[in-house]
Amino acid sequence: MGVVNGVPPAERVPKQDRSRATRQRLLEAAVACLAAHGWAGSTVSVVAERAGVSRGAAQHHFPTREDLFTAAVEYVGEERSTVLRALFPEGAADRRAVVTALVDLYTGPLFRAALHLWVAASNEDQLRPRVIELESRFGRETHRIAVELLNADESRPGVRETVQGFLDMSRGLGLANLLTDDTTRRHRVVTQWAEILDEALG
Amino acid sequence: MGVVNGVPPAERVPKQDRSRATRQRLLEAAVACLAAHGWAGSTVSVVAERAGVSRGAAQHHFPTREDLFTAAVEYVGEERSTVLRALFPEGAADRRAVVTALVDLYTGPLFRAALHLWVAASNEDQLRPRVIELESRFGRETHRIAVELLNADESRPGVRETVQGFLDMSRGLGLANLLTDDTTRRHRVVTQWAEILDEALG
Repeated sequence: MGVVNGVPPAERVPKQDRSRATRQRLLEAAVACLAAHGWAGSTVSVVAERAGVSRGAAQHHFPTREDLFTAAVEYVGEERSTVLRALFPEGAADRRAVVTALVDLYTGPLFRAALHLWVAASNEDQLRPRVIELESRFGRETHRIAVELLNADESRPGVRETVQGFLDMSRGLGLANLLTDDTTRRHRVVTQWAEILDEALG
Repeated sequence: MGVVNGVPPAERVPKQDRSRATRQRLLEAAVACLAAHGWAGSTVSVVAERAGVSRGAAQHHFPTREDLFTAAVEYVGEERSTVLRALFPEGAADRRAVVTALVDLYTGPLFRAALHLWVAASNEDQLRPRVIELESRFGRETHRIAVELLNADESRPGVRETVQGFLDMSRGLGLANLLTDDTTRRHRVVTQWAEILDEALG
């Protein structure tokens, strides 16, 4: 389209949208930073630089380090949930594919970032209550999506715990991928447990 | 017994035994320190003080921070394996009891300490290769014990992966216990999955 009324496109973006775009850039940079450098190496300044945003603008959006990083993990988690639902628009098609997609939630940079945040929260009083709240919201939401996509009938006794245990396993598989590439072993485990889970869910 | 030949008992302990006892005190203090304060709060000095050992003596046993903490997680892990085997001297008695005991390995201070070490290792080049080696040894040993106690026949296809997935779940359950007391939920999950595992193992 080029230029309308002599105003270049970038300047025509409304202020509100530019602010939203800046916020988003900061959140994505924060998750990448946390995944790569851990809590100790993650500050508002480092993230602002990574996002190409001034430190002042970053602090306008997120006054504290805790604000920035909990918001980041929350935002990216929500994005992931949206992507996951979009993968299976008709609900559970093939349970094995759903199991694989759910496990994948825990093996990428988001889980890595969340793990750093959780572990830091266990020693940082300022961070702990926020991360507990975030983890519980995250956990409930992931459980809801898993039940739906796995076509699990929670009115049957034991089904709720079956899905919970499977999500615990996914978290464990994420942990096993932290220091080394565990892909080959994980694929074998997931293949076997997708079958067991399918049988257990009926 | 009291005193023999006028030498008080403490002084009769051979030097080698005293050195071993000091080492052990340091290792136990290191795990407790790591579980309570994380990697950032864990130094040789802090551990020496906690163990009631001089900093010089601590450094005689463990020249670097990496030496001390990897040795600590290794030592306590070995102790745990010994205790676990001793719980079921006849091998698998009741699979549900074995499942509970195995999950318990991942919900106490040792797992907490190991988790801090793993997460720190993901950002510390000096620590990473040692922790990878330790984790792989640990993983193999726990798998061996689990197979034995669960009376699992690994010659049957899928059994190896079934046991691995169960241990991944245990690790995930340990993670879920990091920030809040997850005991009640965990008991329900373990009850359900002990049954599923029992069926899957035949």
